[in-house]
Amino acid sequence: MATAPDDKTEGSKALILQSARREIVENGILGLRVAEVAAGANCSITQIYRYFGDRNGLLARVLGDMYEELVRGATKAYQALVFAKDVITVNDMVDALPSMFEVGATENQRIRLQILAASVTNEPLRRRLEDITQAEADAWEEGLDEAERRLAPGETFDRRVFTMVLATQLPYYRILMGEKGFTSEDFRQFLREKMSS
Amino acid sequence: MATAPDDKTEGSKALILQSARREIVENGILGLRVAEVAAGANCSITQIYRYFGDRNGLLARVLGDMYEELVRGATKAYQALVFAKDVITVNDMVDALPSMFEVGATENQRIRLQILAASVTNEPLRRRLEDITQAEADAWEEGLDEAERRLAPGETFDRRVFTMVLATQLPYYRILMGEKGFTSEDFRQFLREKMSS
Repeated sequence: MATAPDDKTEGSKALILQSARREIVENGILGLRVAEVAAGANCSITQIYRYFGDRNGLLARVLGDMYEELVRGATKAYQALVFAKDVITVNDMVDALPSMFEVGATENQRIRLQILAASVTNEPLRRRLEDITQAEADAWEEGLDEAERRLAPGETFDRRVFTMVLATQLPYYRILMGEKGFTSEDFRQFLREKMSS
Repeated sequence: MATAPDDKTEGSKALILQSARREIVENGILGLRVAEVAAGANCSITQIYRYFGDRNGLLARVLGDMYEELVRGATKAYQALVFAKDVITVNDMVDALPSMFEVGATENQRIRLQILAASVTNEPLRRRLEDITQAEADAWEEGLDEAERRLAPGETFDRRVFTMVLATQLPYYRILMGEKGFTSEDFRQFLREKMSS
């Protein structure tokens, strides 16, 4: 059976996105050249413009996808840890937070920062990040509802620590603080105190 | 009296920095071309390389200066408000915080984000931001010592809210949250509760 036209379109879009992501990993966001992406995907520049509008549109799609994967991945990993037990405590919720200072966390911060900065001058990317952030806010509210249902008797927690503190933190600032900065354990101790409402 | 050689050097460095800053304001960090900076400063490209090493070195100096002005300016404005009175309360300290959502704050966030992202791939700039952040951490500790001395009888505050929460916040995340996000007043109320240790 011949491939349906829609499958072909989806197939070449996927090839373009793969090629663009390879280019970004190799040369950075700024180094992305549409001609190189086209060469890597075995298609024409015109085809890329037809699918994604322009270079900003292509970046919005690829960087938006990368950002969504980072954000969703972090939330899912956290929820899997917290919800491994049927009854949880505030301490469990703090202990399950990823360390700010792991090597992987630092690398993710670098990628996030570059995508956030790109969104300042790329309007479609900024709109995409808004959609992702707002969907994520909903997912967090649901997760916090679930956490409240599973909370051990007598325990309470202040969800604003999640929605106002953790949701708006940039650990890169902590990295810049070097020796002057707080430790991961200092921060956990702080959260334990402030989270028990 | 003829200008001394050192004054001449400082003078042409200052012209280069002014020209570079103009270029950045007009064309963005990525659009900075050393040839344009040289033309704007009436000097040669070679002279720029002699003073600043390379394009990254020039950017490290200009963006580092801009970042330092933003950060120091924010701290000084905050401390001027808080220390306008001899005796202060925790509420005064919260009320004096700049609103996350003012137009000026949003623009500063955009500039900060772009400088932070540039520092991910510009090693001299990252070192400069580390120096600035660490000097700022010292300035904050001194400011918090002073706040403790001026605190009204019976009041206490938890300085970790400054060093761990406010120092690492990226309000741009709040901007992305749009309607799903908390308000400036929600956040102040949260801080009032958590800051009284």
